[in-house]
Amino acid sequence: MESPHSHSHSHPHSQSQSKSQSQSQFVCRWYPPAFDIRLESVPIPTIQHPDDAIIKIKFAGLCGSDLHVYRGHEDVNETHICGHEFIGHVVALGSSFHSGSPPSRPVLYSYLKVGDKVISPFTVSCGECEYCRLGFTARCISSLLFGSPTLQGCQAQYVRVPLAGGTLFSLSTLSLPLDHPLSLPQELSSLPDPALLLLADILPTGLFVVLQACTHPKLAPIFTGIPWPHSLGHLTRDVLLKGCTLPFLSAAERILDVAIVGLGPVGLCATLALLDYLTRADVRYRIVAVDPNGSRRAKMQKIYDALPEDAKGKSADEFIVSDIPDVPKVVQAWGRRGCHAVLEVVGTPSALTLSVSLLAPSGVLSSCGVHQSPQIPFTGRELYDRNVSLEFGRCSAHSIFAAAVGLLLRRRDVLGAIGECSIIDRVIPLRDAVKAYEAFEKGVYGKVVFDPWA
Amino acid sequence: MESPHSHSHSHPHSQSQSKSQSQSQFVCRWYPPAFDIRLESVPIPTIQHPDDAIIKIKFAGLCGSDLHVYRGHEDVNETHICGHEFIGHVVALGSSFHSGSPPSRPVLYSYLKVGDKVISPFTVSCGECEYCRLGFTARCISSLLFGSPTLQGCQAQYVRVPLAGGTLFSLSTLSLPLDHPLSLPQELSSLPDPALLLLADILPTGLFVVLQACTHPKLAPIFTGIPWPHSLGHLTRDVLLKGCTLPFLSAAERILDVAIVGLGPVGLCATLALLDYLTRADVRYRIVAVDPNGSRRAKMQKIYDALPEDAKGKSADEFIVSDIPDVPKVVQAWGRRGCHAVLEVVGTPSALTLSVSLLAPSGVLSSCGVHQSPQIPFTGRELYDRNVSLEFGRCSAHSIFAAAVGLLLRRRDVLGAIGECSIIDRVIPLRDAVKAYEAFEKGVYGKVVFDPWA
Repeated sequence: MESPHSHSHSHPHSQSQSKSQSQSQFVCRWYPPAFDIRLESVPIPTIQHPDDAIIKIKFAGLCGSDLHVYRGHEDVNETHICGHEFIGHVVALGSSFHSGSPPSRPVLYSYLKVGDKVISPFTVSCGECEYCRLGFTARCISSLLFGSPTLQGCQAQYVRVPLAGGTLFSLSTLSLPLDHPLSLPQELSSLPDPALLLLADILPTGLFVVLQACTHPKLAPIFTGIPWPHSLGHLTRDVLLKGCTLPFLSAAERILDVAIVGLGPVGLCATLALLDYLTRADVRYRIVAVDPNGSRRAKMQKIYDALPEDAKGKSADEFIVSDIPDVPKVVQAWGRRGCHAVLEVVGTPSALTLSVSLLAPSGVLSSCGVHQSPQIPFTGRELYDRNVSLEFGRCSAHSIFAAAVGLLLRRRDVLGAIGECSIIDRVIPLRDAVKAYEAFEKGVYGKVVFDPWA
Repeated sequence: MESPHSHSHSHPHSQSQSKSQSQSQFVCRWYPPAFDIRLESVPIPTIQHPDDAIIKIKFAGLCGSDLHVYRGHEDVNETHICGHEFIGHVVALGSSFHSGSPPSRPVLYSYLKVGDKVISPFTVSCGECEYCRLGFTARCISSLLFGSPTLQGCQAQYVRVPLAGGTLFSLSTLSLPLDHPLSLPQELSSLPDPALLLLADILPTGLFVVLQACTHPKLAPIFTGIPWPHSLGHLTRDVLLKGCTLPFLSAAERILDVAIVGLGPVGLCATLALLDYLTRADVRYRIVAVDPNGSRRAKMQKIYDALPEDAKGKSADEFIVSDIPDVPKVVQAWGRRGCHAVLEVVGTPSALTLSVSLLAPSGVLSSCGVHQSPQIPFTGRELYDRNVSLEFGRCSAHSIFAAAVGLLLRRRDVLGAIGECSIIDRVIPLRDAVKAYEAFEKGVYGKVVFDPWA
């Protein structure tokens, strides 16, 4: 079928793109065992399934979790194209995309057109299985991760997106009426593309690690002022507070203490998401943001200092950036036995150990780190004796997308910029990827965005 | 000061009891290294601190966690009186108990009188520290466990209760007006004392492991019909469902699958608490209740069969009692990749391993088992790859007490009885404790209640 959209790109692919085409593109590929990134020419991908879309990449991100593969930590032995964050334009669509797509399928199958501008979450999700419908799109039964042996990545000029109607978000639907299921806020169109690229992974993931903590029932007493378990809702309150001598909490008792372990790009996003959540909930806080890397700490401090006053909460709120050896003293000085919540944004056993050591009894450890093969370093007794809650896993970037858009727009002063006081450090040509991986791995570069056409 | 209460017991102790008194009592003591329980005569405890109360025990429970000590698994080398569940009457109070007690202190300091009938949670809590005020009384900074080296137990004729105004519940306040902070429902007075004893530990603990699961944000989509994270409240919904193609869940999609691992007395209480929670929330379920012990499985089945129809939910709901080898088939037959929640009520690495194996991706493991020194048997990668949430720890029995009272009254048909179709297996003289520990440890006896005066 023909697309009714006009589009400016001149690429020859179309919705009826043939598999026999094999023009070549420029990509960044990883070779085993480790630290071997090569810039190569490979065929442009083609439609392989009716649900596929082929996207011409405008920008692709370099993410901290690309380093797991780069360092050879992922138990992967197959060469593949790297990268899982991209923004671009549709150049070809499979036959599932048409106005007569069944209403049981994701709405995008009826609306996406060649030429549309799209962002993709870092994993593919069908939008139809029970996990997608619950909102746990990261655990879609057909989930695939871009930039892995099972799905070629996007540090390239073109990428194939399977299950594209369940996976992609169209930015060409900004003109749809506000009550349309695909409508997104018009203000998004004023943000630069590298800023929109944050919606692919690190902003949703930073928000995810915050939501896992802040919506945990153990933090409800701080947010509501009502002691546990009466804070949990009517099914635990039927005998009300009678027979229970615990009174409501005073304002002074409702100060949330949080540690953020890891200040890479996701840690910066998590910090902004946390400050946004707490100021909107009007909850007082003391936050300690921890990283062993001095340049990361400096960037965190700079970003915090640059925030407008209303984004920092009340004057009594504390925000301390700390090296690892100093953090126990910071938490001790708060006069508690630890933090109510710790956000672990690293993915190593040592980060887990530090995180649990900073946690108060009955605290919540929310982790979005991509942990590897070591057994987790706690005995059952330690966890029992301190009533520890542990939240592990991958962000469901598709279902959290709308909330991340809200955060991106409210915090566009930091998230919409590029450079010193923003999350994105620099935009560089994809042909400089070898150098960029090296510098990012050493912490010399912050968040990098690649332009595959420069 | 003098108590204005009349009371029928004839014990000579009074509120001004002197430390020099040393009449003897009959107790059950544990000796290291293991399996050595002795019935002995020791001095009756006396007031040692103004916040103390001395309680004359009417009944004391034998609990599954007494077996951790009995078996020598608790790394304890000191002889002590066993037991942490009791109901009895106040025979002496420290000087903190008087009508002029400061309003900043727990209300019970102003009301408790010699002669009052009381129940105690299994741990002492002050009611004044930050943990108590948040509702996490199990992690009170002054917490002590009855029946441990730091606090003598209650399998005795008398017990000393430290921080008694923060710890105890008075059943003599049933006549207080309904809006009084110490008021409890009048219907409690019609329940037999061994049934009230369930409020000391196992009913709150069974309810705790259920609340940890059912109030977890990952189960909110099933309870509300709204996909995650929109199910989490207004702070995650500001961009509403626009831009998000996930529709609300159908009734058929809102069936909660739960496994309960361990059908000892706490497992039975957890099952009753779960059925109560789900039927009140009007949520459909499929439950598999697992234990390797045939007599425990038979008791579970008997109790379920004896429940009134409205306590079992709708006719399509499934409740299956299973041995360990069969449980994977049960869950597989449900056509999912595992359960939304698993309640782990055992406290061993093998129970943890089974529990996580039964969990669907993005599932919640709620554990109330008293885990010991082995490292928990999962790699970080397993937990990340399946988005596992783990909830560990001890029940805050004091703060959950009011909710447990509601459950006890609604489920008095099972919980208010003694024998085959109830949680309490038998009431026996404390002088038979050696035999009772042996039989309970082997699973021959179910829940045992001791009468120290028979």
